[in-house]
Amino acid sequence: MTDHTFYMKLALENARAMKGQTDPNPMVGSVIVNENRIVGIGSHLKPGEPHAEIHALRMAGEKAEGGTIYVTLEPCSHYGRTGPCAQAIVKAGLSKVVIASLDPNPLVSGRGVAILKEAGIEVITGIMEKESQQMNEVFNKFIVQKLPFVTVKSAATLDGKIATATHDSKWITGEAARKNVHQIRNENMAILVGVNTVIKDDPELTARIPNGRNPVRVILDSTLRIPVSSKVVQDKKAETWIFTTERAREEKRQVLESHGVSIFTTKSRDGRVNPEEVLHLLGEQQISSVMIEGGGAVNASFLEQQLIDKFVVYMAPKLLGGSLSPTFLEGQGAERMSGAVDLREMTVEQVGDDFKFTGYPVYK
Amino acid sequence: MTDHTFYMKLALENARAMKGQTDPNPMVGSVIVNENRIVGIGSHLKPGEPHAEIHALRMAGEKAEGGTIYVTLEPCSHYGRTGPCAQAIVKAGLSKVVIASLDPNPLVSGRGVAILKEAGIEVITGIMEKESQQMNEVFNKFIVQKLPFVTVKSAATLDGKIATATHDSKWITGEAARKNVHQIRNENMAILVGVNTVIKDDPELTARIPNGRNPVRVILDSTLRIPVSSKVVQDKKAETWIFTTERAREEKRQVLESHGVSIFTTKSRDGRVNPEEVLHLLGEQQISSVMIEGGGAVNASFLEQQLIDKFVVYMAPKLLGGSLSPTFLEGQGAERMSGAVDLREMTVEQVGDDFKFTGYPVYK
Repeated sequence: MTDHTFYMKLALENARAMKGQTDPNPMVGSVIVNENRIVGIGSHLKPGEPHAEIHALRMAGEKAEGGTIYVTLEPCSHYGRTGPCAQAIVKAGLSKVVIASLDPNPLVSGRGVAILKEAGIEVITGIMEKESQQMNEVFNKFIVQKLPFVTVKSAATLDGKIATATHDSKWITGEAARKNVHQIRNENMAILVGVNTVIKDDPELTARIPNGRNPVRVILDSTLRIPVSSKVVQDKKAETWIFTTERAREEKRQVLESHGVSIFTTKSRDGRVNPEEVLHLLGEQQISSVMIEGGGAVNASFLEQQLIDKFVVYMAPKLLGGSLSPTFLEGQGAERMSGAVDLREMTVEQVGDDFKFTGYPVYK
Repeated sequence: MTDHTFYMKLALENARAMKGQTDPNPMVGSVIVNENRIVGIGSHLKPGEPHAEIHALRMAGEKAEGGTIYVTLEPCSHYGRTGPCAQAIVKAGLSKVVIASLDPNPLVSGRGVAILKEAGIEVITGIMEKESQQMNEVFNKFIVQKLPFVTVKSAATLDGKIATATHDSKWITGEAARKNVHQIRNENMAILVGVNTVIKDDPELTARIPNGRNPVRVILDSTLRIPVSSKVVQDKKAETWIFTTERAREEKRQVLESHGVSIFTTKSRDGRVNPEEVLHLLGEQQISSVMIEGGGAVNASFLEQQLIDKFVVYMAPKLLGGSLSPTFLEGQGAERMSGAVDLREMTVEQVGDDFKFTGYPVYK
């Protein structure tokens, strides 16, 4: 088992290194071992190019025969752009295949393994499965549900405040944490805020890192109150999509569209934009990931509908106090402790002077 | 430097092991090294018994001569219960003394070092100074200021809530964290809450650990609203001291006193008990440490007067939400981010499923 973990770790590292360049495909890595020596490594680099296993098989050449191939995702069974990898493994004469996680798509999951087993190859699954699934959490959700993976990002003081009662929030966290946020923005296809954030802060909502790609800027604005002078309307640094309701005025819509902004009209829910419909529409637009940087009300509206997949919270070593200072989760809230939403796999790491929490909500 | 740190660490560990049994004296440890071999170790075990250096010197015997003695606190210069340690070190013929921190009492700080230097002994100070000071943080404050060291303890969800809007708070954290709290209660001489906590939760406020000593239970109650049926009034498991104001009714005071409760009347501040006066009175009663387990209002009233020395916050992997759910720091709060209170030396460790933060507020 120690050996399996050792090689699978390497395969995972090679997969992870391609973060951001494999979309819409998942990240996948592979290692081939024969007589205790690594004879091939591979990664899926780019859509349209070979899968990880094919690269590793090419590197190994004849030395693949009789060896063990490690692959972070079940080898594919379908004739896609680069042919079925399961077939290639059979052809190369491997004797063992070690897989981290099965294909997340229920329509094909297990088919690759079946091909391998039919050919008499020993197959071991589930080695570092969690790590592999987490690495491709965005892909895994989108391929199955056609809905974007939703991450809520927030920054709070140790006493839970995201701003003072007068809405001053510059800055809660330090420079290292703010850089880290730009990195995460870069990894998401869209970034979502409520219109109040635009009115109050007039943010750019871009990923200010070298070679960064800018996510689509998604604004929830039920009555199109957004100022036409806002940076997200004017600066053309990234696409801006506004989700509104039938309550919006037609003239304002036309003015905004004349600035290149896209407007989506959703059926209102209690007079507001319906979060669930927003995610469906984003999915239809092939947006596989969205990061919510909303205030406590927007965050709560998504949580109440159980739409949030992941929380990333930066905790600053500061205290703000104030019974009227906002927190990152407002709304109604749970009535009893038993109604609290648990976070699984919560981890913490230090980023500069701040602490970065990551966790996945468990809905009942 | 590596060597110094190695031996000083051992001295610190031996000192720390006596936590709770040296009061009102500080914890102190000592190690004697001669020709790269440890020839003596010592700890201050109990008031009235020898200081750490004396134990180490006794163990080393003749092997102390020409050696180096490590001690976590400056050797004393005064003729106390066990004679001046600086003199004993000179007499034993040590050639070098390595000290973590100087005596915190400004009246005698540096005197021990002076005696050693006058005798021609090399003295090195400041090795693991922070660790030593932190270990005796309670002693160091009390000896100088005659005020108790104030720790605020709280338990919150990741979104900063300490209860639901309906005041349900059982339980935020898991069993391991709650046990940890009982341990900290045991290390404090008093535990302080507001009367609202008593009215709402009717807590015992005892340290439920084997062989635990119970801290004095301090209740802030400006008008003596405390129910006579409360556990802290009835159960006799520990002393209960109620701090009130001249606004309290005399009859209620007599009833409470008849149950063995001590009542302290303070001058009110905006109609409430004045936190500063409470600490002065506790200091006069030789209470050197107090843990506040108040709600957000009590915590804020102490923070506003800059009276809190340390925060211990358990963060649960949960989300409660709710714009009306209380946080552990309420009151007015800072108006601007620049008014936030920074926490220095903030650390985090995992306790069960929860995260325990420790930090020291920096007042401007």
